[in-house]
Amino acid sequence: MKTTVKVAVVGASGYSGEELVRLLLHHPHADLTAVTSRQYAGQTLTQIFPKFAHHPTAKTLCFSDPNAGLLARQAEIVFLALPHGVAAEYTAPLLQLGRQVIDLSADFRLKSEAVYKEFYSRDHPAPDLLIKSVYGLPEINRSQILNASLVASPGCYPTSILLPTIPLLRDGLVKPSGIIANSLSGVSGSGRKVEPDYLFVECNESVRPYGIPKHRHLSEIEQELSLAAGVKVTIQFTPHLIPMNRGVLTTIYLAPEKHFTTPDQADALEEKIADCYRSAYCNEPFVRLLDGQALPDTKNVVGTNVIEIAWRLDPRTGRLLVMSALDNLVKGASGQAVQSFNIICGFPETAGLV
Amino acid sequence: MKTTVKVAVVGASGYSGEELVRLLLHHPHADLTAVTSRQYAGQTLTQIFPKFAHHPTAKTLCFSDPNAGLLARQAEIVFLALPHGVAAEYTAPLLQLGRQVIDLSADFRLKSEAVYKEFYSRDHPAPDLLIKSVYGLPEINRSQILNASLVASPGCYPTSILLPTIPLLRDGLVKPSGIIANSLSGVSGSGRKVEPDYLFVECNESVRPYGIPKHRHLSEIEQELSLAAGVKVTIQFTPHLIPMNRGVLTTIYLAPEKHFTTPDQADALEEKIADCYRSAYCNEPFVRLLDGQALPDTKNVVGTNVIEIAWRLDPRTGRLLVMSALDNLVKGASGQAVQSFNIICGFPETAGLV
Amino acid sequence: MKTTVKVAVVGASGYSGEELVRLLLHHPHADLTAVTSRQYAGQTLTQIFPKFAHHPTAKTLCFSDPNAGLLARQAEIVFLALPHGVAAEYTAPLLQLGRQVIDLSADFRLKSEAVYKEFYSRDHPAPDLLIKSVYGLPEINRSQILNASLVASPGCYPTSILLPTIPLLRDGLVKPSGIIANSLSGVSGSGRKVEPDYLFVECNESVRPYGIPKHRHLSEIEQELSLAAGVKVTIQFTPHLIPMNRGVLTTIYLAPEKHFTTPDQADALEEKIADCYRSAYCNEPFVRLLDGQALPDTKNVVGTNVIEIAWRLDPRTGRLLVMSALDNLVKGASGQAVQSFNIICGFPETAGLV
Amino acid sequence: MKTTVKVAVVGASGYSGEELVRLLLHHPHADLTAVTSRQYAGQTLTQIFPKFAHHPTAKTLCFSDPNAGLLARQAEIVFLALPHGVAAEYTAPLLQLGRQVIDLSADFRLKSEAVYKEFYSRDHPAPDLLIKSVYGLPEINRSQILNASLVASPGCYPTSILLPTIPLLRDGLVKPSGIIANSLSGVSGSGRKVEPDYLFVECNESVRPYGIPKHRHLSEIEQELSLAAGVKVTIQFTPHLIPMNRGVLTTIYLAPEKHFTTPDQADALEEKIADCYRSAYCNEPFVRLLDGQALPDTKNVVGTNVIEIAWRLDPRTGRLLVMSALDNLVKGASGQAVQSFNIICGFPETAGLV
Repeated sequence: MKTTVKVAVVGASGYSGEELVRLLLHHPHADLTAVTSRQYAGQTLTQIFPKFAHHPTAKTLCFSDPNAGLLARQAEIVFLALPHGVAAEYTAPLLQLGRQVIDLSADFRLKSEAVYKEFYSRDHPAPDLLIKSVYGLPEINRSQILNASLVASPGCYPTSILLPTIPLLRDGLVKPSGIIANSLSGVSGSGRKVEPDYLFVECNESVRPYGIPKHRHLSEIEQELSLAAGVKVTIQFTPHLIPMNRGVLTTIYLAPEKHFTTPDQADALEEKIADCYRSAYCNEPFVRLLDGQALPDTKNVVGTNVIEIAWRLDPRTGRLLVMSALDNLVKGASGQAVQSFNIICGFPETAGLV
Repeated sequence: MKTTVKVAVVGASGYSGEELVRLLLHHPHADLTAVTSRQYAGQTLTQIFPKFAHHPTAKTLCFSDPNAGLLARQAEIVFLALPHGVAAEYTAPLLQLGRQVIDLSADFRLKSEAVYKEFYSRDHPAPDLLIKSVYGLPEINRSQILNASLVASPGCYPTSILLPTIPLLRDGLVKPSGIIANSLSGVSGSGRKVEPDYLFVECNESVRPYGIPKHRHLSEIEQELSLAAGVKVTIQFTPHLIPMNRGVLTTIYLAPEKHFTTPDQADALEEKIADCYRSAYCNEPFVRLLDGQALPDTKNVVGTNVIEIAWRLDPRTGRLLVMSALDNLVKGASGQAVQSFNIICGFPETAGLV
Repeated sequence: MKTTVKVAVVGASGYSGEELVRLLLHHPHADLTAVTSRQYAGQTLTQIFPKFAHHPTAKTLCFSDPNAGLLARQAEIVFLALPHGVAAEYTAPLLQLGRQVIDLSADFRLKSEAVYKEFYSRDHPAPDLLIKSVYGLPEINRSQILNASLVASPGCYPTSILLPTIPLLRDGLVKPSGIIANSLSGVSGSGRKVEPDYLFVECNESVRPYGIPKHRHLSEIEQELSLAAGVKVTIQFTPHLIPMNRGVLTTIYLAPEKHFTTPDQADALEEKIADCYRSAYCNEPFVRLLDGQALPDTKNVVGTNVIEIAWRLDPRTGRLLVMSALDNLVKGASGQAVQSFNIICGFPETAGLV
Repeated sequence: MKTTVKVAVVGASGYSGEELVRLLLHHPHADLTAVTSRQYAGQTLTQIFPKFAHHPTAKTLCFSDPNAGLLARQAEIVFLALPHGVAAEYTAPLLQLGRQVIDLSADFRLKSEAVYKEFYSRDHPAPDLLIKSVYGLPEINRSQILNASLVASPGCYPTSILLPTIPLLRDGLVKPSGIIANSLSGVSGSGRKVEPDYLFVECNESVRPYGIPKHRHLSEIEQELSLAAGVKVTIQFTPHLIPMNRGVLTTIYLAPEKHFTTPDQADALEEKIADCYRSAYCNEPFVRLLDGQALPDTKNVVGTNVIEIAWRLDPRTGRLLVMSALDNLVKGASGQAVQSFNIICGFPETAGLV
């Protein structure tokens, strides 16, 4: 195991890229050797992000234009924090030059070209890489990430839905049909888009659904849920934009496989669900299973790589409610990518994340 | 028809009471003759609420201790904006003295003593009045409100769920089972409670579910939905607190009675739903049916008595999604109460509300 | 006096324009006959601003391209809510066609071409009109507004500084030198600018000074203060952007002409200041002089045309502190313009504003 | 030098206490052995602050009732994060038992009993300790902190005013008279007070001055400025509450000793000021002197121990404006206390703070 690995961040000027830079600057085993941004090329990290100014690297490291050949010389592992559709063009050359890639975009998250085309309305630019990529959800795919050359690191909505739902589907505790995920996101989840919809006055004192009924991220969520369930899963997913900077809260409505009409049945089911989550996550450093009366709250996870999960059986409706909270820029983006980086490099999985 | 009606507000110091005072001060046919508040007795409206200071009445009208006999002498119609459980003690004496009461609390919204006890964990203090009261949702119960002596004016969550759902149930377009309502509320929805949970720092940059799975307002929501459907309806209701002052956004998940597998079936169903809403609400001044790509946004209704409604069929899941937005203190409280007041008095229903 | 006056709003798509439309739609004596916006030409008010949808005019009135000749046929009085520098091109033709213009931009607020050039770095496009225009601060220039054909209606910062300071200067109670005004503004004060600085994530949980030390609005503030003082006044003005939608709070530091070393001197000075404000504003419907312990708070004025003013003598420093709060889109823009409209037309000054 | 020092936090349930716990849990050389809170005694850190749940210590460390004898056995250095007036009762016994105390309250910041009584309206409870205590502003008093047994660690407003002003006064560049500091604070600056003024709805969309003209913290600010100037300094200080969780922004108005009428004079003065700040702070890890067009913004310092400082000469008024931004809970409270802890223990001053 190396002590330090040279890393680069391509597309370091967005919110995820900025958070990734923050995490890597403070990572005990990462040496940030390159950051790219067409817009800011030639300027130092400090000039663009004054909040990094106390870090020695940030004072001298300049943004450069992204160039695969150069990046391959500068870094052993390259993080791509680019808009969807752009990451693909850097991935193939970097892989050919023997570099490992951790991609934060959605470009390599799907296994099926056809599904990609259905949801993204274009042909996939590098379909042969889809089979090589590993869906970078460490708590679920740790062993595959370990040997991946290309990690497709999932975003905030998928993470907030998959981690609470996969164990229940795997253990056959809930029906794979009829699942509803209702998600609430802070505005940084939309990226640093300079559009009227994301102006302060348009978001503050406002809440609105968007992207319904067929949000793009449904494709990867359903792909991973189907893998867990062993059957094709189709879900309902409704994202909403709420007036805060960071955080995603998701409420998931599930139907238990077994009815629980009597209190005894309810008790038995509760025990099974608790066991299911405990066996899935009790040793996971970044999954916090809430007990007692506690319910998830984004303010308890913002700034950390933790996802909070709580659940309730509702005897009146026969449903199971599962709620999760995470920081969309950390566990829902850059923290999760660093977690995969730690796995690949053999570092402690929590390195640079606590 | 009288030109002006003398009105009183009991419990005028909470957020709903304050909004009610604001509306009544500017109402062309209301003469605000009394406002009560134990806490502020002896002080003028202006002293407690500087923002009313430009209104001549506010400069001289003093808060008084609430007293049913005195109120009956001062006002023809009395609004009660009291905490749940307190309103009942003023209602009976006021009715006996021949006054009409518009109650903003939940005390008289249920028809069944047993359901009241189940959800409020106490015996109802005036069960004989439950039968006299009218559930004050003007768009649904206008003709009953017209002759009511006691109007139980509904709150924000019920209004945001009932108005979008009742027409569909009445027309048999959706199944009465399996309904889910996911609601998001600004902090004023919790009233002016001086508790740690409602401090700025605890609410800002935070979102959290609460009161699940059996929130008290489920009782009245299910009562009214059951009336519309003609069968007993049990729903799932999940409220969340989000960092804004005002506004409720509700997303409702429904199962259409008819499957719509083919595009033709979908088109036919879309037409039926559109017809259903049009025939229910096209002449309603306070219901805004969104068309085209528009989706509800609380910032478009805050400060008004309007509820926005939009809906989408999802061919992937076979579900109907309905979304609504309203101002919890206006259409979800005080504006709705004033709407009932206008109906009772024979004033234009929009008087004082536009 | 006419009952109704036909009005047009040129540039109705910005925040001030939108607020002006809201006020004029509900104004008892205004008939809104035209709204212009290049961007939205051909669309109805309702399509762009759903929140006006309940108003009959908004459903049918379409945005048009601005055209002075057409506007002159449609309206008797034309409001210009355009960016600085653009208003001038509509003003001259409208005046020539005999229309009255109420301009919300800074184009006609200065009397001196030279000062305009100093602060706006360009020649004034219609210098002959500078002499015709009246600075539209109703509480100060009411009689001039009455006969004005061109009202230059002041914005939020000048209003928040001038109304509290002018009476003190006029009465010689404070020194005209050394004045400092420290202002805090909600984000709508910057207009609907689609720029990175005004994105939600960049403004929320952030506060920052800007435009120092020589903000453009200094020019008109100093012009009006000089008029009041009878000598040339130069002030310090520091605006800050704070995370809220609406509201301006200004804290002004002044030096009393007379020292107040003893308690008797302080009492005497306090009485004089109180008298000065009372005689200036006690009959003004939109100026609220706070007494007792009360201090201005933007939440008490938002949505109204009111400016709150409070003051304190500080015996430790010998200074007088004056604080004001107003809604930047109402008293600081559109409400003030409507106030001038009421004066010009002979309507009650509060018409459409309470 | 020890590798690890045992520390305790008394009053760990407030916002400063919570932040202090966060910093100490992650400090490489601190071993948090005790946290006290009357309210939460018997509960673990994790139960009260779920966000610490990933830290092993937080799972087992229970809040206890504060007891000086016990604390002295548990810890070598004790942090007091108690309300003003309460800290004194723990300080004397802890010092007698040979422990070092870092007090975050205002109890030991003043040197004069008389000034304490003037500003706090009570006799000081332990006046003999006033002389022993060191005002814990590391950038100013580093050498005294090194050997202090009692550090009175300053709060957010004093820090935001003192660090930008002291070097200028020391070097005689600005006049000690006529100083004005206008400060804006996020709501956590008021502590976790469960009072109506700090409810979300009362703070959101609101800005207001408070505590004027004689805020308690004036006493320590003037004490420290007087020390720097060599003469008694009296300043004007106006705090305002703005709607954000964290952050203080202060704008300071100063009069340069020398006039700068000509451009050459201005250039010369600018150079002197730049030199003054550079020589004071260029090696300080937590002071960020902004250059170019940059102005302080709280979002660039929140979560860090950094204070940002920028300044501008205004040739129109002859004044010097200095602006600073810091996180009220870090550099303005707990981070600064940890900085003193590092100095006392001989650890790198940045340990646990970057």
